[in-house]
Amino acid sequence: MQEIRIMGLEGFPLVKTGDDLAVLIIQAAEKEQVSIDDGDILVVSQKVVSKANGRVTQLKTVKPSKKALAVARKTSKDPRFVELVLEETANIVKASAEILIVENKGGLVCINSGVDKSNVPGVDSYTSLPQDSDESARKLRTQIMRLTGRKVAVIICDTYSRPFRRGQVEFAIGLAGIHPFKDYRGKRDLYHHLLRVKNVAVADEIAAAAELVMGQGDEGIPIAIVKNVKRVERDGSFSAESLNISREEDLFRETL
Amino acid sequence: MQEIRIMGLEGFPLVKTGDDLAVLIIQAAEKEQVSIDDGDILVVSQKVVSKANGRVTQLKTVKPSKKALAVARKTSKDPRFVELVLEETANIVKASAEILIVENKGGLVCINSGVDKSNVPGVDSYTSLPQDSDESARKLRTQIMRLTGRKVAVIICDTYSRPFRRGQVEFAIGLAGIHPFKDYRGKRDLYHHLLRVKNVAVADEIAAAAELVMGQGDEGIPIAIVKNVKRVERDGSFSAESLNISREEDLFRETL
Repeated sequence: MQEIRIMGLEGFPLVKTGDDLAVLIIQAAEKEQVSIDDGDILVVSQKVVSKANGRVTQLKTVKPSKKALAVARKTSKDPRFVELVLEETANIVKASAEILIVENKGGLVCINSGVDKSNVPGVDSYTSLPQDSDESARKLRTQIMRLTGRKVAVIICDTYSRPFRRGQVEFAIGLAGIHPFKDYRGKRDLYHHLLRVKNVAVADEIAAAAELVMGQGDEGIPIAIVKNVKRVERDGSFSAESLNISREEDLFRETL
Repeated sequence: MQEIRIMGLEGFPLVKTGDDLAVLIIQAAEKEQVSIDDGDILVVSQKVVSKANGRVTQLKTVKPSKKALAVARKTSKDPRFVELVLEETANIVKASAEILIVENKGGLVCINSGVDKSNVPGVDSYTSLPQDSDESARKLRTQIMRLTGRKVAVIICDTYSRPFRRGQVEFAIGLAGIHPFKDYRGKRDLYHHLLRVKNVAVADEIAAAAELVMGQGDEGIPIAIVKNVKRVERDGSFSAESLNISREEDLFRETL
């Protein structure tokens, strides 16, 4: 029988710029008596990656551009906050009363470009997403493999709102050592009919699954270890950016 | 340490109209030596619920309406298939070359109203979603509790495409015995800042997590048992329809 196990590493220390996340993860796993094994998928909250990478900015140090001032007026947001958002932005998708939705430089369409203050110390401090979340995942994976000898995968996750659905779920925004999709197209179903459409975004599903142990509030746990996920490809060079669909390919174009 | 376990019930029989899913689930769990315990969440594929409920239609028995004929011309689809879709539809959201996106009667915006032929026997047979997926979940939950004495929750899941993201994930389309959201709004983060937005769609996350053992193709497993999910509310009367956000509330309005 297939059984997936998802473990949240409790008691993870508060992360500061320059911390070696691989070391912290290995220490936390030891303390919790969780072994790190070949094939494990480590799901890591964007927040701790951004903090370790120094992607924390105090608003008082930000000087807003003219564009940020204009967008801030349109959205009734702090122009310095908008400046942080625009630094990560390829295109503004929507700027209206209190809503700022952008396509970020990695092609992810999201609110405020992922700039966020939850679980960040200091009243006017915000995190920005890692500059290259796939690269951060690759580095973390390499370092964990170097220190443990175990061939793991890494998914960096963040919390996102979705069109048409209420509430948020975790998405995969960076990954290494795991294919973001399980593609069933061209395969056969139970009755040997051809599957023409099914291409499952397993990396998003793993991120969502990990949230169930990670949580969001003051009990927040930034690391989950997911064991025994079958049917995913692990060898190859992968990117979470392929989870972002282009406007042209998006079947939901002109539906909102 | 928090540890969630997700088990796929392999060797589940092919389901026919009139089958008692509760009995089949209990038998499959016994065969796999998985205990059903208080607090377990049973995730059940829409496909087996629709089959047990007799929601399978052969196209050759369908007489398309004038509206179905018109929509079929617009979308290059079989008018009898379109008739099945329209029977479940509250509003057509998009009908263009080969794409038919609707809001179904439960408020779910999706492709083809969930009418689908994968894992359905017969070349021209299609399943429609359960008429009331929450009611189906409630009945299944009651029957399992009656037969086992265990207080379980039930989530009925189906595979959906999402705007902006490539590939599909499972969503919760019916549920009983579990709150679809974990609401952090008004709570405090690690640094005691107020969380203003976080309202996590845990039922969608659990559906996505279950897909990791369920799969989609000829190895498809229609039932997963999810154990040890904390931080979800279980007492009360809940509906998966609250996962559908209204056009007015949707922050992504006018972004596609």
